[in-house]
Amino acid sequence: MKVNGDHYQSIWYDEKIDQVKIIDQRLLPYEFKVIIVETLENFENAIKEMAVRGAPLIGATAAFGIARQMLRDPSNKNLDLSWDRLNQTRPTAINLKWALDRCRNHLLNTHLNDRGHEAMRLALEISNEDVEINKNIGLNGLEIIKSIAKNKPDGEPIRLLTHCNAGWLATVDWGTATSAMYQAHNLNIPIHIWVDETRPRNQGALTAWELQNHGISHNYITDNAGGHLMQHGLVDLVIVGTDRTTASGDVCNKIGTYLKALAAHDNGVPFYVALPSPTIDWTIEDGIKEIPIEERSETEVSNIQGKDETGYTTKVKVTPEGTLGANPAFDVTPARLITGLITEKGVCQASAEGLSILFPNLARGVNND
Amino acid sequence: MKVNGDHYQSIWYDEKIDQVKIIDQRLLPYEFKVIIVETLENFENAIKEMAVRGAPLIGATAAFGIARQMLRDPSNKNLDLSWDRLNQTRPTAINLKWALDRCRNHLLNTHLNDRGHEAMRLALEISNEDVEINKNIGLNGLEIIKSIAKNKPDGEPIRLLTHCNAGWLATVDWGTATSAMYQAHNLNIPIHIWVDETRPRNQGALTAWELQNHGISHNYITDNAGGHLMQHGLVDLVIVGTDRTTASGDVCNKIGTYLKALAAHDNGVPFYVALPSPTIDWTIEDGIKEIPIEERSETEVSNIQGKDETGYTTKVKVTPEGTLGANPAFDVTPARLITGLITEKGVCQASAEGLSILFPNLARGVNND
Repeated sequence: MKVNGDHYQSIWYDEKIDQVKIIDQRLLPYEFKVIIVETLENFENAIKEMAVRGAPLIGATAAFGIARQMLRDPSNKNLDLSWDRLNQTRPTAINLKWALDRCRNHLLNTHLNDRGHEAMRLALEISNEDVEINKNIGLNGLEIIKSIAKNKPDGEPIRLLTHCNAGWLATVDWGTATSAMYQAHNLNIPIHIWVDETRPRNQGALTAWELQNHGISHNYITDNAGGHLMQHGLVDLVIVGTDRTTASGDVCNKIGTYLKALAAHDNGVPFYVALPSPTIDWTIEDGIKEIPIEERSETEVSNIQGKDETGYTTKVKVTPEGTLGANPAFDVTPARLITGLITEKGVCQASAEGLSILFPNLARGVNND
Repeated sequence: MKVNGDHYQSIWYDEKIDQVKIIDQRLLPYEFKVIIVETLENFENAIKEMAVRGAPLIGATAAFGIARQMLRDPSNKNLDLSWDRLNQTRPTAINLKWALDRCRNHLLNTHLNDRGHEAMRLALEISNEDVEINKNIGLNGLEIIKSIAKNKPDGEPIRLLTHCNAGWLATVDWGTATSAMYQAHNLNIPIHIWVDETRPRNQGALTAWELQNHGISHNYITDNAGGHLMQHGLVDLVIVGTDRTTASGDVCNKIGTYLKALAAHDNGVPFYVALPSPTIDWTIEDGIKEIPIEERSETEVSNIQGKDETGYTTKVKVTPEGTLGANPAFDVTPARLITGLITEKGVCQASAEGLSILFPNLARGVNND
């Protein structure tokens, strides 16, 4: 999507100078800086220190990491070493291992002389596949926005609410929850986005940065505000992303998503979840009972990052001495509160039945008996 | 309640040195400082600059302001001047005008020679009435906590969740939502409090400061976390305060309260609102339609106060350049989501019928036909 009028991805290959580039997301939303990643250490640090973040982007970064190594030394030894070191950077990121395995399996069957070229081709393929998936999620979500627009007076914006950053910065391009927003904006359908700040890590500031740079009207709101806005008819549609969706349509996403789903349900506001189908976990049904929720550091709650009055990025502690935070990082929104799931294959009901229609070969026990 | 082991009120008359003292709440929760308020300017600034905050405390402060003036110059001219200047400090605070009128009406019927003494007596009376009301709210709420304790294994804490600061700092003592917590703690009933941080102004940090100083177990959580905690059976009871309750039991309170009420309702967690009966607005029914919601400065959302690494209290800006916040300050929780109202007269259903039983002379149109 756009930054200062130019199109960017979160990772890309700059052919002119034969280099891979990323946006250093540690500095966002305060500073926009592009960096070159070339050595194995560059790639390790980019993932480990969260210069890149978001499952699809981490996977693509790892693939480019392998590729740059194969160009330098295509030996099996170097392939294994690169796989090992990149795999250790974020051990819980499923896409990371998936991308690394895909690269290694393919390259082990590729002649040494062709490995560098093949590895680059594969990294670009993985990266482009992500762009394509997200673009299609957006095109499917666009239909929902269009159908709401039909019932609005001409020129009145569709007001969408989103939580966290399921934007292009967390993918290679388009984002998941944001993809339909960009599609609508690019078609000149007027939209306005309520951006939940998403405490404790304020990923809403990244979403706001994206929207601001792409020229989309938005306001940054506290996570407390959405219910009130819905009560007063100021939200037409909610779209959020997800880290994991169960086979029955329960959605695990950033902490606080469940509260917005409750408010949407209470006020008759459509609540959609945008997701690439590989994030569906076909092995589990009940998200609340079966998905373990990560408890993250209490300092994320007690200390908040921002820019001080001198323009320096720093953290302030908001809690009194002796008080400890508690920090569950995700929650689960039960399928019953979700209007629909927006995938790259189409939109379906958040239910085993709904998913089985879009993914008949993957869904278990439904229509397959 | 207690600070460093000693009992404090948020405002009090120190007989030994014949001075009125307050806690300078602008410095909390980072610094505890007691200041003397004596001149009219002292009192004006204390209210205007929010060294004191919370409707009951503002009322008591104004009454002491009149009293200290009457001791110096009991003339009608000075009475009117003091009324005028104090009344302008926070024009929308209902308790302010109520306390000022009560003082003026009484003093106009008091001989000049007695006015100083009478004004001090009245200020103490207003202040003590608030303490008494809140203490009784707490005793009534205590019965709810006790009934939950009965069904808990011995020694297992009752886990309460609260939003904003409806604590003793916002009243003269005890607080409203916190009063039952202090009562329970003082009886050695084990409790643990989940304190919502309450963005944008993080009044949860004040609640945490109160609890920490009184020795009550608690965690500071993001406003996003409560739903997840309730889904997992980690909240036994929610108690919040309110700024205004309608005759039908709708409750206007700090933004985000409605989302917690929805989550409590969805998970079968009792959701109570603690309130002094003077905050019931008997003239309105439908809170969502009839209560105008204040839209406060967007900088409250985009800038967050805390202590930097050098211990200096400062603000950081969390939003990117060009992004504006939106900041509705309150929301309305419909009566249907509220288990009960805890007042100084007893606990009742959040409904016109419920309120009419406790307040038969005030409720309109119910049981009065």
